Amino acid sequence: MATATANRPVQRIVILGGGFAGVHTARCLERRLKHQPDVELVLVNQENYLVFQPLLAEVVSGNIGLLDTVNPIRRMLKRTRLYVREIDGINLDEQTVTLTPGFRPRPDVLHYDHLVLALGNVTDFRGIPGLPEHALPFKTLADAVCLRNHLLHALEEASIETDPDVRASLLTFVIAGGGFSGVEVAAEMNDFLRRIAGEYRQIDPAAIRVILVHTGDQVLHRELGAELSKYATNVLRKRGVELILGHRLTAASRDAAILDDGRRILTRTLVSTVPSSPNPLIDALQVPKQRGRPLVDRYLSLNGHAHVWALGDCALVPMAGEGEFCPPTAQHAIRQATTVAQNIAAKLKGEPLSEFSFQGLGKMGSLGHRCAVAELFNRFRFSGFVAWLMWRTVYWWKLPGAARKARVGIAWFLDLIMPPDTVELKIHPAGGVAQAHFEAGEIIFRQGDLGDALYIILNGEVDVIIESEDTSHVVAVLTAGDYFGELALLNDHHRSATIQCKTPVDVLTMHRADFAALTTNLPELKKSFQHPDRENASPLPH
Amino acid sequence: MATATANRPVQRIVILGGGFAGVHTARCLERRLKHQPDVELVLVNQENYLVFQPLLAEVVSGNIGLLDTVNPIRRMLKRTRLYVREIDGINLDEQTVTLTPGFRPRPDVLHYDHLVLALGNVTDFRGIPGLPEHALPFKTLADAVCLRNHLLHALEEASIETDPDVRASLLTFVIAGGGFSGVEVAAEMNDFLRRIAGEYRQIDPAAIRVILVHTGDQVLHRELGAELSKYATNVLRKRGVELILGHRLTAASRDAAILDDGRRILTRTLVSTVPSSPNPLIDALQVPKQRGRPLVDRYLSLNGHAHVWALGDCALVPMAGEGEFCPPTAQHAIRQATTVAQNIAAKLKGEPLSEFSFQGLGKMGSLGHRCAVAELFNRFRFSGFVAWLMWRTVYWWKLPGAARKARVGIAWFLDLIMPPDTVELKIHPAGGVAQAHFEAGEIIFRQGDLGDALYIILNGEVDVIIESEDTSHVVAVLTAGDYFGELALLNDHHRSATIQCKTPVDVLTMHRADFAALTTNLPELKKSFQHPDRENASPLPH
Repeated sequence: MATATANRPVQRIVILGGGFAGVHTARCLERRLKHQPDVELVLVNQENYLVFQPLLAEVVSGNIGLLDTVNPIRRMLKRTRLYVREIDGINLDEQTVTLTPGFRPRPDVLHYDHLVLALGNVTDFRGIPGLPEHALPFKTLADAVCLRNHLLHALEEASIETDPDVRASLLTFVIAGGGFSGVEVAAEMNDFLRRIAGEYRQIDPAAIRVILVHTGDQVLHRELGAELSKYATNVLRKRGVELILGHRLTAASRDAAILDDGRRILTRTLVSTVPSSPNPLIDALQVPKQRGRPLVDRYLSLNGHAHVWALGDCALVPMAGEGEFCPPTAQHAIRQATTVAQNIAAKLKGEPLSEFSFQGLGKMGSLGHRCAVAELFNRFRFSGFVAWLMWRTVYWWKLPGAARKARVGIAWFLDLIMPPDTVELKIHPAGGVAQAHFEAGEIIFRQGDLGDALYIILNGEVDVIIESEDTSHVVAVLTAGDYFGELALLNDHHRSATIQCKTPVDVLTMHRADFAALTTNLPELKKSFQHPDRENASPLPH
Repeated sequence: MATATANRPVQRIVILGGGFAGVHTARCLERRLKHQPDVELVLVNQENYLVFQPLLAEVVSGNIGLLDTVNPIRRMLKRTRLYVREIDGINLDEQTVTLTPGFRPRPDVLHYDHLVLALGNVTDFRGIPGLPEHALPFKTLADAVCLRNHLLHALEEASIETDPDVRASLLTFVIAGGGFSGVEVAAEMNDFLRRIAGEYRQIDPAAIRVILVHTGDQVLHRELGAELSKYATNVLRKRGVELILGHRLTAASRDAAILDDGRRILTRTLVSTVPSSPNPLIDALQVPKQRGRPLVDRYLSLNGHAHVWALGDCALVPMAGEGEFCPPTAQHAIRQATTVAQNIAAKLKGEPLSEFSFQGLGKMGSLGHRCAVAELFNRFRFSGFVAWLMWRTVYWWKLPGAARKARVGIAWFLDLIMPPDTVELKIHPAGGVAQAHFEAGEIIFRQGDLGDALYIILNGEVDVIIESEDTSHVVAVLTAGDYFGELALLNDHHRSATIQCKTPVDVLTMHRADFAALTTNLPELKKSFQHPDRENASPLPH
């Protein structure tokens, strides 16, 4: 926008991403450019806060408050201008970044002199059928809050559900991925569910199953040595987590998680911490990449673009003198941020650049309930309560902001003496248009059910089955482009047939209220759902 | 459902509603029926927690944590079975309550021997054009969290908005209703916005306008005497709240609040604490009512239905010997709950019933920032810091649960020494089908804007205006049933025309992503948006 660039100062540095990498780059730049007020610092992030990932799993269990693991970015950056927006595109030739519109439907375009790419990676569920529709991700604060609410909702429903099969599936919780993130969330979920199950008097705590699916022979086998990963595996098992090792998820549906050996675990809760992939904005950049990540030189500048810098999880940063690349951890991101800030400041002042070099301090992971594993400097190993104390101390110390430190400290103390919170915070009603995946043999709805949605088949085939007192027969087969379920919505009926999948099926669903609003006011749409072929082609499912 | 009623004990008491009235009825019943295990207690509520309304406004300002003003119902009721569901219908003849489905699309039907109606009232924005679509309610925890996020979002956008008019409207916050709820939320919003504005360096704190619109000559003029309401009015004014007294809201649109004198206040934030009306479930009951509320006798039993009881805000409860009715306050609800529990227990035991009698203790309201007003026993009046200390002490004391008391106490202490939280917690993306209202003369979108939604006119007329360099002319008029904005979505274009309202207009909007998902997969729908009449009838707005 003209106005956004008109009064542009001599130099503008635009940082994309508000994780550890982006925020620390801005912080270091603020310090280094203290005496250069003609340089404008801009940081663009979708949220107005920095997420402190290591404590995110504790939000699920309510050990800490909902907002205790995040810190407002404005409070950490006094000079940087924060744009809380999504990024629409990056144009390296024109040196501009386009932001999605805010209240006005006009895009904002920011010109930059230096660009810092610190976009992290994103959860990418494509490639496994049903995962995008039915798995819960675990990466952002919103993910943690949604997962927590989902767990509470499942317990609430299980406590009044009369069908034993549905009840069992509501009490089965599956986590895919046995890295740090998967192990931590599985451990916290397990602790939380078993701790609060007693309050649901109709639920037998022994009926709760927490299942962790992992491709390796031990959890954390890539992250830690044999000894510690074996220890972690045993601790989880002892605490009641069922481990399915050496297998992986191949599909997910509304009702089940499907493994590579064909096993179907009936569940309404599937959390996936894998896979993650680079931000789509990085995908769209025409620069040399490896494993989807842009390659940077030892100064952290993008090959061929001296004014573009990349760091953190979104970049492939070479380790000093080894031919290897930095792992995607906060400790590396923070050190890379220091180097990037140093080098941008050096460029502005015409000074020589510094090389990035850092070997990593160690790794730590919580196993929940006062137990953890830690490995320092690739040599010293700790486990159990001592490791857990180290884990809490280090992360508490690293937590940005005195206010957050105080809140988390108090929350940890209260957690020792008070029961965990079991409030399910429902904020938005479900609605709109969504997608769903079903596996062959699964039932989408049953004759007699209430009509809650319209279904449009994207691919696959379903049988339409009419059930009478003692028999049932297939009256039609529907396939891609067909839709079903609309008549129960138009006429406020119960479902007149059962729909069962012949093959894996993807459908688009539209909720009852939205369908009603549209068909009431768009006569053409209503007509298209009532055309004569359709009405004569009886009996089709309502 | 057969299973739900099969093993039914001798007697089942079903309580509808989990506010003060419902939860306290269950609590008293648990105590009184301790030695009668054959009586089953059931409570149905949409949420698994009780909201402590008096502190709800402090959630907005973040003085207390997001979940500090609610308490899990299960923790307060050890014996009662909690159904976290919505209620679909009540059948007094068959003595059943039907619940909406949970994970399975089947309704649950509960039979009752005694029914307690404690459904409270609901926010009802019908009757004022644009209010349902554009006003934020303030009644539930979700409302408080959404309002808080909305305030932060408005500040974020204002801090990067370049258009001075849009910026001014983003910084204007309007509250309609000067009762306790409106005054408290206005006071907390005012405190919060002015306290955190300093962190948004591009925002001039003097540009923030908090406007309270109230029909009376003083705020709280119905609730308190002349002296205290004058005091409250002055305090709000001194703190920077603009008061518009003697006027009321007559319409709301996306961009403005419209008053009865025709004044248009440009704003993106309109909070309405009026009006409220009885729960729709009460509307549907065929029982004698007055002002929409069922009449109960002095034993709190519904006239003509000896096994149905009603209390709290949803009922019209006569005051002892006066011909007047109880006001809708928590103190009355709690005393009514005791009477209802006593009388149900008496019925079960064949003992005589007790009459309800309570005169009220007093009224209190917070004016924010260590200032309040209070009136006790209709005689003693307090204001300022002393009243505020009373207010905090009484409500802290009344707060259910030791854990909540501890958390709120700590939050209040931290609030003295730490800056308020400014984290905007975005949980769900916007989407689906929504309605919007515009007043005559307002612009729905401008030529050149990005296409973000499809619009279907429900009523009213709009001008389609093509603007060229120096002129603009109306090329078409659209009216009810017409739709516009679809081509920019189908073809990924910018808007090719401006749409301005000739009359007040209601539209149905469908977000870009949902529209794309539907038209891609429902060829009939796409065709209906591309039929030849439409394409030739150029130039129509995309």
